[in-house]
Amino acid sequence: MSLNTFGHLFRVTTWGESHGPALGATVDGCPPGIPLDETMLQHWLDRRRPGQTKHTTQRQEPDRVRVLSGVFEGVTTGTPIQLMIENTDQRSKDYGEIAQTFRPGHADITYHLKYGRRDYRGGGRSSARETAARVAAGGVAREAIKALVPGCEIKGYMVQMGEVLIDREAFDWDAIDANPFWIPQGPDTVAKWDAYLSAIRKAQNSVGAAVEVVARGVPAGLGAPVYGKLDTDLAAAMMSINAVKGVEIGEGMAAAALKGTENADEIFMGNDGQPVFSSNHAGGILGGISTGQDVVVRFAVKPTSSILTPRQSIRLDGTATEVITKGRHDPCVGIRAVPVGEAMMACVILDHILLDRGQTGGTRGKIG
Amino acid sequence: MSLNTFGHLFRVTTWGESHGPALGATVDGCPPGIPLDETMLQHWLDRRRPGQTKHTTQRQEPDRVRVLSGVFEGVTTGTPIQLMIENTDQRSKDYGEIAQTFRPGHADITYHLKYGRRDYRGGGRSSARETAARVAAGGVAREAIKALVPGCEIKGYMVQMGEVLIDREAFDWDAIDANPFWIPQGPDTVAKWDAYLSAIRKAQNSVGAAVEVVARGVPAGLGAPVYGKLDTDLAAAMMSINAVKGVEIGEGMAAAALKGTENADEIFMGNDGQPVFSSNHAGGILGGISTGQDVVVRFAVKPTSSILTPRQSIRLDGTATEVITKGRHDPCVGIRAVPVGEAMMACVILDHILLDRGQTGGTRGKIG
Amino acid sequence: MSLNTFGHLFRVTTWGESHGPALGATVDGCPPGIPLDETMLQHWLDRRRPGQTKHTTQRQEPDRVRVLSGVFEGVTTGTPIQLMIENTDQRSKDYGEIAQTFRPGHADITYHLKYGRRDYRGGGRSSARETAARVAAGGVAREAIKALVPGCEIKGYMVQMGEVLIDREAFDWDAIDANPFWIPQGPDTVAKWDAYLSAIRKAQNSVGAAVEVVARGVPAGLGAPVYGKLDTDLAAAMMSINAVKGVEIGEGMAAAALKGTENADEIFMGNDGQPVFSSNHAGGILGGISTGQDVVVRFAVKPTSSILTPRQSIRLDGTATEVITKGRHDPCVGIRAVPVGEAMMACVILDHILLDRGQTGGTRGKIG
Amino acid sequence: MSLNTFGHLFRVTTWGESHGPALGATVDGCPPGIPLDETMLQHWLDRRRPGQTKHTTQRQEPDRVRVLSGVFEGVTTGTPIQLMIENTDQRSKDYGEIAQTFRPGHADITYHLKYGRRDYRGGGRSSARETAARVAAGGVAREAIKALVPGCEIKGYMVQMGEVLIDREAFDWDAIDANPFWIPQGPDTVAKWDAYLSAIRKAQNSVGAAVEVVARGVPAGLGAPVYGKLDTDLAAAMMSINAVKGVEIGEGMAAAALKGTENADEIFMGNDGQPVFSSNHAGGILGGISTGQDVVVRFAVKPTSSILTPRQSIRLDGTATEVITKGRHDPCVGIRAVPVGEAMMACVILDHILLDRGQTGGTRGKIG
Repeated sequence: MSLNTFGHLFRVTTWGESHGPALGATVDGCPPGIPLDETMLQHWLDRRRPGQTKHTTQRQEPDRVRVLSGVFEGVTTGTPIQLMIENTDQRSKDYGEIAQTFRPGHADITYHLKYGRRDYRGGGRSSARETAARVAAGGVAREAIKALVPGCEIKGYMVQMGEVLIDREAFDWDAIDANPFWIPQGPDTVAKWDAYLSAIRKAQNSVGAAVEVVARGVPAGLGAPVYGKLDTDLAAAMMSINAVKGVEIGEGMAAAALKGTENADEIFMGNDGQPVFSSNHAGGILGGISTGQDVVVRFAVKPTSSILTPRQSIRLDGTATEVITKGRHDPCVGIRAVPVGEAMMACVILDHILLDRGQTGGTRGKIG
Repeated sequence: MSLNTFGHLFRVTTWGESHGPALGATVDGCPPGIPLDETMLQHWLDRRRPGQTKHTTQRQEPDRVRVLSGVFEGVTTGTPIQLMIENTDQRSKDYGEIAQTFRPGHADITYHLKYGRRDYRGGGRSSARETAARVAAGGVAREAIKALVPGCEIKGYMVQMGEVLIDREAFDWDAIDANPFWIPQGPDTVAKWDAYLSAIRKAQNSVGAAVEVVARGVPAGLGAPVYGKLDTDLAAAMMSINAVKGVEIGEGMAAAALKGTENADEIFMGNDGQPVFSSNHAGGILGGISTGQDVVVRFAVKPTSSILTPRQSIRLDGTATEVITKGRHDPCVGIRAVPVGEAMMACVILDHILLDRGQTGGTRGKIG
Repeated sequence: MSLNTFGHLFRVTTWGESHGPALGATVDGCPPGIPLDETMLQHWLDRRRPGQTKHTTQRQEPDRVRVLSGVFEGVTTGTPIQLMIENTDQRSKDYGEIAQTFRPGHADITYHLKYGRRDYRGGGRSSARETAARVAAGGVAREAIKALVPGCEIKGYMVQMGEVLIDREAFDWDAIDANPFWIPQGPDTVAKWDAYLSAIRKAQNSVGAAVEVVARGVPAGLGAPVYGKLDTDLAAAMMSINAVKGVEIGEGMAAAALKGTENADEIFMGNDGQPVFSSNHAGGILGGISTGQDVVVRFAVKPTSSILTPRQSIRLDGTATEVITKGRHDPCVGIRAVPVGEAMMACVILDHILLDRGQTGGTRGKIG
Repeated sequence: MSLNTFGHLFRVTTWGESHGPALGATVDGCPPGIPLDETMLQHWLDRRRPGQTKHTTQRQEPDRVRVLSGVFEGVTTGTPIQLMIENTDQRSKDYGEIAQTFRPGHADITYHLKYGRRDYRGGGRSSARETAARVAAGGVAREAIKALVPGCEIKGYMVQMGEVLIDREAFDWDAIDANPFWIPQGPDTVAKWDAYLSAIRKAQNSVGAAVEVVARGVPAGLGAPVYGKLDTDLAAAMMSINAVKGVEIGEGMAAAALKGTENADEIFMGNDGQPVFSSNHAGGILGGISTGQDVVVRFAVKPTSSILTPRQSIRLDGTATEVITKGRHDPCVGIRAVPVGEAMMACVILDHILLDRGQTGGTRGKIG
């Protein structure tokens, strides 16, 4: 990862600001011959799109993605794919106060300190709108994975919102797409989450969240030790998402409390020449290389910093001020981080499929 | 990060296996004119060196580092610095069984699956011995930081070992270097940690840990959004360390449970034209760019997989076996992860000092 | 350089095909605070624009560049700058034959062999239209150079077209912009070049060319030995331009015929603490680092492969065919390579200004 | 290429100075399972080794290469391969004068200006001794190519020395290894070259040269347009060699004088489903991608700047001086550039074999 590009061989460069004319992703290194059109990408953008429920920002953006290059006669050509999303709902308003004020918890002050200026309209480059471009790029990655590794499936879901955790005993994979929180839980739990978040909003507050992303059907052998490990790249990918403060693989931070007898996944021989494991504390990765088990990543998203409760801050001229962020803001940005986390997982997995092919030819050592 | 290299402008490539003739780091991009000699680097390697207490492996390696290039007349020249550590204690022994067996929790099986072969002697490339090269490179980074940003200080310490946590109320920065666990606590607590780990060892078990690394005196403005963010690079750096399963910045995973009113660090004007903050939930980083506060990173290390308690596994031929790892192993690899975490922090901070200089000339926006 | 991106810190990714909806450049790493608008970039695009004289393709493209991101209130912000040029003159026509045929001297056959498909409309990605994006990016680089190194000037000109060479004795720097060949020569010579090329065209033929690009006012000390040398990056930059077959620095290939006494530039002390040289056989670069003299690069462009004279070739199905390229083609693509070579020089020089700042802080050793 | 590393997936970082304790190459990204030992590499180093004929420096260096990592049980493991060559013949001498003086045509002055210091012993990092590390790395690349693309052969030879050119009509591939100039010519020509160079030496002078490197049996489809083109990477690779001032592919600079009818290689159908070409003006590369024909690169090496004839220069303190370089110097460094050019070709070809595998899976479009 470097500047505004991530990936080794599948390289994604995102560009654009929240209130500029457009934003997008330049996707380089997609293999040729992958069926691709705008509809396929729009599907994933629609999942992330704001304004769909009462819990996400009411900014109305159609987030319509256009493919400007790299696709010909319905398939990728191996050349760069330019994905552009035009910004349409740029409410004209007076930016006078926000232009002069640093909002606590936001990147306003660090962009100013680093660059000597910032596009203050809607957070500029540091706005979560940048993640729309990631989701579009992730859509490309998903189609390539589908073609190269049939059966590989990527899914994200919330596992925590504030004090509320999901019940792992009642985990329901199929429920994820059926509720606005993308939680793997039934309608009763969804109702509770809804009530919880409504109360947060009414209290003019916001709340953090934790998201888990799982990749099933990942072949063993992906990962480039020791500094391009699969988990290293996943950690970077997730930490680069706005508001993320922690990343875990498998047991994650809880591994600190475990004993050796509890943690190591024992190995057995499967029927098809592949190993099977008694458990997956490792999150599908050993020594930076995939084992063939589910790859499991979790990340924490901090509570939205834009809240109606007043916070102390300073202005550009150094004078003190009190900030109340009105505008259109999600009380829990973790919700919309779900499709973003999925997109990053897809990009990293595809990148490592290609990298592994380049390094080893994709051959595998045999067991048995 | 890519293959065996990390860093944008300060680029470190480590090489070598646990039981090969030598291992080391090729350090490229160190600025010219930095005073450097082997003694300065040896200081940090001695911190990490095995065989110093009863809690670390009894393998006796002097870990003597040699500087083969890039330094002339006592200062760096701007050319690559080759750091070599010869392996001396390579006990000749029969590797017959380990060569045929995949140890649970180790990278044996994934290296075999990916590469079709592995250097099975002591874990080969996936051994924690690789981290000696990181510590040497980190020593170079520390000297460069000292010259470029006087007053910037980097320190790591354990904050958790199994069920035992440090007492933050009794935090003693000066105690860190005075005990074998590098904990910021007094002798009584050290004695308790010692007893706890001795019990783990006697039970033929091992235990996980959490390590915190703090960088003080980091200038505001470091970080290259949006994919070379300071926290992104730190997450990658720490996750690339052997056995690490989670990385946190500031509040870390706990941010998921917080409300907006609790999390945002309020901003005030300091005396010297720099902002001051009411708290540091952000861990010194906003929008991927340093704020000028302490940069705070935490990571979890899983318990040593090599334990005397038998574990189920398979052999290269697919037959079942039971693994008991005798050898010389740390019951808590988290201890020796402290100097490694410090080294990675030093490398990332220096890299971003250089990158920022390249991107912006190191100028800063003014407040007030 | 890698895939579709070039540059270390000033990173340019071009995208788009000849007959797709648009093409452009994603420019990352431009320093903040540089005044920039579309008019400044359009100036350079207009130099390269087709359809201006009888000697360049009659395709009528306005080549209007739009800045979609990275500029706010008239200056760069330090975030990615997206430059988009929409394709407007995509004549609808029957591509049936060209879709099935490999044109000799073109990339048709190699794209097909590599990717299994190609966008055959107008050469797709391998069309010289891609260089419009380079010229736009070069315009950004020029503005940044102007701000960072005032007095640095970059200029390209033809030095050879077929058998015709410029007269170095009559070199006229100011004449370059006053003629359609960008030759540093007076009107009489221009008339001769015009007649020569008209004859080539009438003979249904095309002709090669050599272009020289000079950068004046380049500070000493740019270049990252030993694999990011200034001449190495210039060689790559120029060789990446369509149809270029050779690159020279200073004496270039002629150095092979020289003796040591003839070649070495002797050194004297200048008035301002800077060295002066008796000559510039080195082309302003020693050991990969700029000396402070003019940086001089030359490259050869092969004759346009698209000619009306029939050439033997094969079809996709392996059958033999004869190719006559009608369409709108320049008889000497070297003419329009001049602004492209300038753009590449500008990008490389800026990149090395930034890289040097990152590596050394831009400080310089003293003489005297 | 960046700093001291080149290559996309096959990444070579060289390190070390002329008179330091050792120099070498850190070779990352070599595929696993390639048979490799020190003898194989020594073979190529011996070709480049100084002190073998009267025309090369009499410095006696055994240039013994050691493999410190990445090879186990006689084959590569996929981990970094560290190649170290110890410097043994570091004559102790008084460097007083050379330490204070900038030799014309050398990098002394630019290193000083950039870095504020330099290792002046034998040219330090800018010495041609650095190329020994390239040759060792090239040896690794050759073995990997042999395993992955049997039949691919790389050979370099001189084509010009000063005013003397080879006779292409009498080209003898088998004669190359049988004479000290590596020219594809019989003994009579060799004798003439010998007499010519002896006269140059007696005149206390030196002379330039041109070297051609050919790769036969390169599969079609290698090259990553548009900025990782095969010719782009070859141009960079060759231009990075000490003293190189020009690089050509196929017709090279001569393409400027050609007409379209003369230059385009016509295409016919071969017997095995592969195209055949009537000629190879393109040097085996179209649009940056290999055609399957011989890849032909040429580069010019300037005359050795170290000559006994006095040259004007300045000292560190700015005073004028006259430089006579005594020491042990080749009158034509072009001779020893032959194995270096071969090594760079091998590294680039292997890199693109791996890159192509990663990008496209190595599949190929069909003809017929």
